[in-house]
Amino acid sequence: MSAAAALETFSRHGGRLAAAAAAFPAAPRPWIDLSTGVNPRPYPAPAATRAARARLPDPETLRALEAAAAAAFGAPAERVTAVPGSESAIRLLPDLLGVRRVAIAHDTYGGHAEAWRAAGAEILRRPEDAEAWVVVNPNNPDGRATAADELLASAAIRWTVVDEAFVETEPELSVAAQAGGRLIVLRSFGKFFGLAGLRLGFVIADADVTARLRARLGDWPLSADAITAGQAAYVDTPWADAARKRLARDAARLDRLLAAAGLTPLGGTLLFRLARAPDAAGVFLRLAHAGVLCRPFADPRLLRFGLPGRPAEWTRLAAALSGERS
Amino acid sequence: MSAAAALETFSRHGGRLAAAAAAFPAAPRPWIDLSTGVNPRPYPAPAATRAARARLPDPETLRALEAAAAAAFGAPAERVTAVPGSESAIRLLPDLLGVRRVAIAHDTYGGHAEAWRAAGAEILRRPEDAEAWVVVNPNNPDGRATAADELLASAAIRWTVVDEAFVETEPELSVAAQAGGRLIVLRSFGKFFGLAGLRLGFVIADADVTARLRARLGDWPLSADAITAGQAAYVDTPWADAARKRLARDAARLDRLLAAAGLTPLGGTLLFRLARAPDAAGVFLRLAHAGVLCRPFADPRLLRFGLPGRPAEWTRLAAALSGERS
Repeated sequence: MSAAAALETFSRHGGRLAAAAAAFPAAPRPWIDLSTGVNPRPYPAPAATRAARARLPDPETLRALEAAAAAAFGAPAERVTAVPGSESAIRLLPDLLGVRRVAIAHDTYGGHAEAWRAAGAEILRRPEDAEAWVVVNPNNPDGRATAADELLASAAIRWTVVDEAFVETEPELSVAAQAGGRLIVLRSFGKFFGLAGLRLGFVIADADVTARLRARLGDWPLSADAITAGQAAYVDTPWADAARKRLARDAARLDRLLAAAGLTPLGGTLLFRLARAPDAAGVFLRLAHAGVLCRPFADPRLLRFGLPGRPAEWTRLAAALSGERS
Repeated sequence: MSAAAALETFSRHGGRLAAAAAAFPAAPRPWIDLSTGVNPRPYPAPAATRAARARLPDPETLRALEAAAAAAFGAPAERVTAVPGSESAIRLLPDLLGVRRVAIAHDTYGGHAEAWRAAGAEILRRPEDAEAWVVVNPNNPDGRATAADELLASAAIRWTVVDEAFVETEPELSVAAQAGGRLIVLRSFGKFFGLAGLRLGFVIADADVTARLRARLGDWPLSADAITAGQAAYVDTPWADAARKRLARDAARLDRLLAAAGLTPLGGTLLFRLARAPDAAGVFLRLAHAGVLCRPFADPRLLRFGLPGRPAEWTRLAAALSGERS
């Protein structure tokens, strides 16, 4: 596969393991997926019971999950709506808000722009020109933080959508407790808790946005497994505290590994690290040939790396990176 | 609980077991939930692997599920889009089609009217006056069938949305193979396969509607467990054939039981039976006091019953029904 084709295929979203296996058939298995920002050590969530999988999820159970999540977010329970992944909320918001001109802060997760374009909105750079401002905080992929004051000042003027998909490891950045009025906060479950396949996220908003969102979600938006896992995870403070400490150690270790291989760590969050490489596409290809999938971007100097999990993954990444130097 | 309050609480949707347990605290446990139309003998679906639950579902895997479902529906794979429950599609369609005047056929599942009202549409009775016609086929709760000719003739003139949530036991009614143009077909996984808690459904539509729907769903609309279960279930023809035979026997048995208790069976599908009772609210309450939840309606003469599953459930239903006659 050429560098250009690889960029084309793998720079839109992470997680394309099947495409990687098809594009690099000679790469050693199993693939190591570092192309997303999902905690490689999942929360040990209970599965839903057979009875719960068989029946429609009870609305009371869903409300209990939202209450548990709200307590973890520091937000009032009645402002918190569970959705099947924060991506689904990203896609619903443009129609819901009916905004025609939106600004999206920084170079960031591409799903926001896709959603607004699909709804026919014009995407601007400056929030001053727009009816809504979308900020990923901390930002993906560079980890840049936007101050709460700036977000609250924006929300006094226009819709301000703060995607806190990666805020669990920097909870002091969150404005979830202030959501309401024109401030809408999105949260993700699967990244920090390492269970992205369950599809669970949240929207924190005022009563009117919440009512309109619920009308568009219907009565059973979540799977029984998502509800069961979320209810357990959001009250497990000891697990979250230990996970934050472990992620901090592993993020620092990954930065050291990247630097030792000649890449320049540029930051990120504790769930992924951004790095500059003189020939990022070349590094991407060489890692892919070694069965390691990282995340390239349209900017040919950048690569993003999720955290390896098991010791063998660290070893293989280190070998693949140092091989690329030799 | 008064008859009026019970109607208010339990006539909007089925599946409100927690509310029933709270309203009738002295009822024997476990509750028997006959308030929905979900197969009480679930498909023995494999659970997703731990690895699949941890990561974002691969788009290739989602496409494979859609292909398996399309083959079961007799529809082209490129017209089939998986959604997290057909309810989610019901809620998305009004914004997607941008229609302001819709007709909804017969007295039917209330989620359709709720979704169109939430989007600001006017709901009419006659399709001739509307830009879109919604038909549940076979209809819930009375099982009424609408002929394919009538649906196709409507789709030649206006958007025609056919909700085939209960068509698996009457596959000859399906127009899934003809979907496209202005004909949109919805399918449900959880009812026939008895796994409503997984949240899986499908929209069958032409390329334009499909593209707009996918843009609103985002890249990861389904949980790993829904994908895993659906892939196995839709190719298991022997299980489906046996399930249809069993459901036919059980539906006939339920009609006999209701008739023996003085109710008048009015039809339905093989997943639920509608019956007339001189005092439906009274029957509802007496069953509820016996720990059996059936489904009342605003029409005070009607009750709907899902199928009991285990032998003990049939025994308790028979006792509760005959007790009501004594």
